[in-house]
Amino acid sequence: VKEAIERLREIDREIYRLSEISAALGWDQETYMPPGALNDRAEQQSIVEGMIHERITSAEVGNILEKLGVDLENLSADLVIDGLEEIDNAFVREIARFYKRETKLPKKLVEEYAREASISQSRWVEARKASDFSIFKPHLEKVLSLKCEIADLIGYEKERYDALLDSYEPWMKTEELLSVFERFEGRIKEFVKRIVASGKKVNNDFLYRSFDRKKQEEFGRFILGEMGFDFERGRLDVSAHPFTTSLGFADVRLTTRYNEKDFKSGLFGIIHEGGHGLYEQGFSEKLIGILADGTSMGIHESQSRMWENLVGRSLPFWKAYFPKLKETFPGELSDVSLEDFYRGINEITPSLIRVEADEVTYNLHIIIRFKLERELLNGKLKVQDLPEAWNSEYSGLLGIKPPNDADGVLQDIHWSHGYFGYFPTYSLGNLYSAQFFAKMKSEIPGLEDEIGKGNLQVVLSWLREKIHRHGRVYPATKLCMEVTGETLDPDYFMKYLEGKYQDIY
Amino acid sequence: VKEAIERLREIDREIYRLSEISAALGWDQETYMPPGALNDRAEQQSIVEGMIHERITSAEVGNILEKLGVDLENLSADLVIDGLEEIDNAFVREIARFYKRETKLPKKLVEEYAREASISQSRWVEARKASDFSIFKPHLEKVLSLKCEIADLIGYEKERYDALLDSYEPWMKTEELLSVFERFEGRIKEFVKRIVASGKKVNNDFLYRSFDRKKQEEFGRFILGEMGFDFERGRLDVSAHPFTTSLGFADVRLTTRYNEKDFKSGLFGIIHEGGHGLYEQGFSEKLIGILADGTSMGIHESQSRMWENLVGRSLPFWKAYFPKLKETFPGELSDVSLEDFYRGINEITPSLIRVEADEVTYNLHIIIRFKLERELLNGKLKVQDLPEAWNSEYSGLLGIKPPNDADGVLQDIHWSHGYFGYFPTYSLGNLYSAQFFAKMKSEIPGLEDEIGKGNLQVVLSWLREKIHRHGRVYPATKLCMEVTGETLDPDYFMKYLEGKYQDIY
Repeated sequence: VKEAIERLREIDREIYRLSEISAALGWDQETYMPPGALNDRAEQQSIVEGMIHERITSAEVGNILEKLGVDLENLSADLVIDGLEEIDNAFVREIARFYKRETKLPKKLVEEYAREASISQSRWVEARKASDFSIFKPHLEKVLSLKCEIADLIGYEKERYDALLDSYEPWMKTEELLSVFERFEGRIKEFVKRIVASGKKVNNDFLYRSFDRKKQEEFGRFILGEMGFDFERGRLDVSAHPFTTSLGFADVRLTTRYNEKDFKSGLFGIIHEGGHGLYEQGFSEKLIGILADGTSMGIHESQSRMWENLVGRSLPFWKAYFPKLKETFPGELSDVSLEDFYRGINEITPSLIRVEADEVTYNLHIIIRFKLERELLNGKLKVQDLPEAWNSEYSGLLGIKPPNDADGVLQDIHWSHGYFGYFPTYSLGNLYSAQFFAKMKSEIPGLEDEIGKGNLQVVLSWLREKIHRHGRVYPATKLCMEVTGETLDPDYFMKYLEGKYQDIY
Repeated sequence: VKEAIERLREIDREIYRLSEISAALGWDQETYMPPGALNDRAEQQSIVEGMIHERITSAEVGNILEKLGVDLENLSADLVIDGLEEIDNAFVREIARFYKRETKLPKKLVEEYAREASISQSRWVEARKASDFSIFKPHLEKVLSLKCEIADLIGYEKERYDALLDSYEPWMKTEELLSVFERFEGRIKEFVKRIVASGKKVNNDFLYRSFDRKKQEEFGRFILGEMGFDFERGRLDVSAHPFTTSLGFADVRLTTRYNEKDFKSGLFGIIHEGGHGLYEQGFSEKLIGILADGTSMGIHESQSRMWENLVGRSLPFWKAYFPKLKETFPGELSDVSLEDFYRGINEITPSLIRVEADEVTYNLHIIIRFKLERELLNGKLKVQDLPEAWNSEYSGLLGIKPPNDADGVLQDIHWSHGYFGYFPTYSLGNLYSAQFFAKMKSEIPGLEDEIGKGNLQVVLSWLREKIHRHGRVYPATKLCMEVTGETLDPDYFMKYLEGKYQDIY
C-alpha cells in the first residue's frame, strides 16, 4: 500500500506541475500575451491539457486504485480506506475522483476543449472591448456544445448541470444547491425590496471623483500587505477581468483592474482576489500536489467574499485604514468623514456589474446567471437568444436594462472559458463566509477591536488554522462542520446583512 | 517517404510547442516571477525539458530516420536525401541533428540540467544584485560540471568546447572559430590601440544626463515600430539582462533595461533585441516547427548587431530620428547637435560592460569570455578562481579593473544558464553583419539616403527576403554564401570600422 501511494504521488506531482504550467500559460494570456499569439497559445494549452489527461487516465493509476480497493462506482466524499492516515486517504479520494471523471473523456475531446476555450477567451476580450456579442457568439456556441458533450460523457442522474457543478463544488448536486438557494433567494429579494422601498439614499458621489491609477495601485498593495499577502510568493497585475491563479506552490498571482472614475472597482477587486490569494498561500506544504488547492469554489469564494465584505467593507476595517486612504488621496477625500465613507461603500442599489455590486444585490446577479446557464445546458435557451434573455432578467429582477453587451451579457469571463456551473459558488461563498465569520467572532474576543487597530493578522491566523492549511483534505461540507459545528445555514448570512444594514438604512 | 515525413512533422510540432512553453516559463522567470517561486519553476522546466527529450529520442524517430536512409554517424550540413524538396531535406537534417545529440543524453541528466540551470539563473540575479560572486559560485560549479558531463556524452574530436559551440553555431568546430578570430583579433587590438594612442577624445557627457525612464521607453517603442517590429505579435518588457525569446510563432518577446543616467543602455538594448525580434518575426509560416528558428546564433547576432550598430549608430539613422529624440527630451538635448550626438554614441573607449561597449572594444569583451570559458571547460580554470582571472584579463586587455563583481564577472547571464560556447557568436555576428550590410549596400542604390529619410522598411525587406524567411533551411555558412557569394570574411568588418572611425577619430 505504501509503495502504491508513493507511486501515485509521483504521478500526481507531474500532473500538479503540468497544471501549474497550464496556469502560467493562462495567466500570461490574460495579462501580457500579444493578441496575435492566440493560436500559438491555444495549441500549447491543448498539448498540456492532453498530457494531464494522459497521465491521470493511465492504466497504472487505474491499477493502483484497484489495488487500494477503491470502489469507483460508489465513490463518495466519505471514502475511507482502512489503514490510511487522513491525508493519504484524502489524497487517494481526490485522485480517484479525478481519474473517474477523466477516464470518461477521450483525449481528443480534452485537447479540443482546451484549444477552443483558449481561443474563446480571447474572443470574449475582443467582443467585450467592442461591446459586440456577435464576435463572441460562435465561440460561446462551440464551447457550450463541447461542455454539453463533456457533461453527457461524465454522466448525471437528474440533469446536465450536475456533471458540471461537480467540478467547482465537488460532491454537490444541483438539487441540494436549489434547496440552499430556496432558503435565501426569497429573503434577499425581499431585503432589496425593503431597502429600495424605504426611499433612503446613501450619498457616495465622492467615490466617483477622479482617483489616480498609480495611487490606487499603491494603496491596494498596501492593503494586500496588511492582509498578510506575501509578495515574495506572489504578484499583483492588471487584466480585463480580475482573477487569482497559482503558477506554483509559492507563486500566487492576483489581478485587478482600475477605473479612475470608480474607486471601488480596483480596491475591492484587490481585496477580493487577495482573499483567494491568502487561501492559496496558506496550504500546508506537505499537501503539494492535488490536495494543495481550494476544497471547493464555494469555500474559495468564502475567503474572497469574507475579506472583501465582512472585513473590507466593515467599519472597524476603515477605522484602521481610512486615515491612510485620506493621506493617499488628500484632495479627493478631504471633505469625507469615516462614517460617510463607510456608508458610501455600502450603498445598496441595483446595478449592472456583478463584481462591483453591493453584497446584497450581488446575489441577484448570481441568481440570473445560475438560471440562464442551466437553461443553456438544458437546451431551453439558445446562445443567440442569450443577450435578450440576459437583458430581460436584469429588467425583471434588478429593474435595470444593460445599455450595451459589454455591461450586460459580456461582463463576465466565465462562460468564455466554459465555466458553466461556477457562478452559484459565489453565493455559496457569501453564505459560508458569514457562517465562518460568526464562528471566528465567537472564538476571538474583541475581534472587531483588533481589526479596528489594523491587526488583520488575527483574522488570517484563524483562517490559516481552521481552513487554509487543510487544502482539499476535507470536502466542503465536512470542513464546514469541522469549523462551525453545523452544516451550511443561510441564516448566518441573512442575520449578518440585517444587523449591518439596520445601522446604515 | 511522404508518410514518414508527415509523422515526423507531427512529432516535431509537439516538440516545437513544448519548446515554446519552456520559453514562456523562462520569459516569465526573468520578467515577472516572484522570487519565492524559484523551485516551482525549476521543477516545471525540468518536466518540460524531459518531455522534449523523450519525444525527440523516441524509437519512432530513430526508425523514421533510418527508413529515410539518414547516416547519423556522418551527418553533415550538406546532407542530401534523394527525392526530397529543399525544405523537407532541411527538416530531416535538423531533426536528425537534434536526435543524434539528444540520444546521447539520459533523460535524468536533461531534467537535472534544466532544474539546476533554472535555479542558477535566479541565484545569478541575486548575486548580481548583491554584487557577490560567492552566492553564485556553487551554482555555476554545478552547472559547469553538468555541462562538462553533457559535452563528454555528446562527444568531440579535439576539445570539449566543440560539443557545446555546436549547439549555438551548428556544424562549427572550435578550430575554425579560432582561425576566424585569428584573422581579426590582432587587427581589433591594434585598432583600439591606435585610437587610444591618438589621444583624441569624444565628448558625450550629455548622454549621462538624466533621461526620464518613461520617455526612454516611449522613444524605444517608437524606434521599434519604425524598424518594423510588429507589436500585435510581440512585446517589450524589462529584465535584469536584455534578451529576446519566442513564446509562439507569433509571440516574440523582447526585454531591455533602463538607466536614467545612461541613455545608451536602454535604447541600444532595444534596437539590438529588436534586430533579433525581426528575425524571429520573419520566418516563413510554412517552416513552423524546428526550422522556424535562427539558423545559428552567429547569424542571429548578425541581425541584432546590424540594427544596433550598422544601422542604429549610423549618421543617416540619426538624421532621420534625432529631431524626434530632441522632441522627446527637449531639455536634455537642447544644446546637442546631430553631429555631436553621432560622435557621442560612437565613442570608442575601453569600458566595463559588454552590452554597453562600443562596437570595436566589444570584441575584446568577447575574446576574454571565449578564453575563460574554454579554460573552464578544459579544467584549466576553476570556478573559484574565475573572478580573479576575469579581473586580470580586463586589466590586461582593456586596461581597467572591475570595481566589483556585478560589473565584472557577474555582468552576463549566459554562464548562469550554462550557455558556454555562446559568446563567440557575438563576434561572428559582428563579422556577418558587416558582410551582409556591404552586400545590401551594393544591391540597394541609395540605401543610406533611404535610412536618412527614415525608410527602414528598405532594410527590413532585404533582410526578410535574403535571411529571415529561410529560418534554418540553410546552415550559416551556406546562407552566407547564398547571400553574399563568399564565405565569412573578417575584412568586411575591419573595412567598415576603418571607414567609419576615420571620420570620427
